[in-house]
Amino acid sequence: MEFSWYISGFVDGEGCFSVSFTYRSKLNTKIEVRPSFSISQNKRNLKILEEIKNFFGVGSIRFSKRDQNFKYEVRSIHDLVKRIIPHFKKFPLKTKKSEDFSRFSKICDLVYNNHHLNKKYLLEIIDEAYKMNESGKRKYSKQKLLKLMAR
Amino acid sequence: MEFSWYISGFVDGEGCFSVSFTYRSKLNTKIEVRPSFSISQNKRNLKILEEIKNFFGVGSIRFSKRDQNFKYEVRSIHDLVKRIIPHFKKFPLKTKKSEDFSRFSKICDLVYNNHHLNKKYLLEIIDEAYKMNESGKRKYSKQKLLKLMAR
Repeated sequence: MEFSWYISGFVDGEGCFSVSFTYRSKLNTKIEVRPSFSISQNKRNLKILEEIKNFFGVGSIRFSKRDQNFKYEVRSIHDLVKRIIPHFKKFPLKTKKSEDFSRFSKICDLVYNNHHLNKKYLLEIIDEAYKMNESGKRKYSKQKLLKLMAR
Repeated sequence: MEFSWYISGFVDGEGCFSVSFTYRSKLNTKIEVRPSFSISQNKRNLKILEEIKNFFGVGSIRFSKRDQNFKYEVRSIHDLVKRIIPHFKKFPLKTKKSEDFSRFSKICDLVYNNHHLNKKYLLEIIDEAYKMNESGKRKYSKQKLLKLMAR
């Protein structure tokens, strides 16, 4: 209980809920959807990442060369829907990140139910995702993504 | 209780315990010691800073032009020793920041008891302080500070 609230506080500052898109010519929709939850920390704080990983019992820790940090990451849609999202519904975030979380949660539900394979829902997913983490970098602009879908 | 742990988690990511030094020719030691606790956030998260300020019941929030952020800050040595430090002793940090906190706590005790006006203790304070927040910027190098003291 105590650690649960600690984690929500820590994630409110340091965590990231994101949804990325990749072009896949073989997919019917042409676009692969990848939701993920992550926390990056300098090597000196590897221990807290391990504690959080143990707490959730899902995900993995890897070293990210790009930003020279360790990253705890959960990519499995099952683990996101069954373990990560319920945690933050029970122990809610308090910053504006809670709005990202709401969108993330909605998108994960759609993906979990395979609705992302349907172009109509995929458009909705893209729409929501591009309202998230506005300061973050994206491989494709929203327009570019919609063009790829139309191929 | 719940918010207490949330705050410790949030501060473990976003908070800063720091001790700064300023040259004051009129002081016997020549050096003024200023411990402070702060949390910086983008404007969109001003609300959580206000909640934290209300929770602690001390400190103030100001806009920092330099980094275009809002900053919750506690500078009063009384408030630090009586309100802030006891919180993080009861609800401990879990990252390496806990080491900064230990040093900060020790320094604040010395300052609270006016030992920083004594050169011997001031040297001890400087020694501890320069082991904190190693990535942070400092106005004076440790050597420069010791030279100023010897004036």
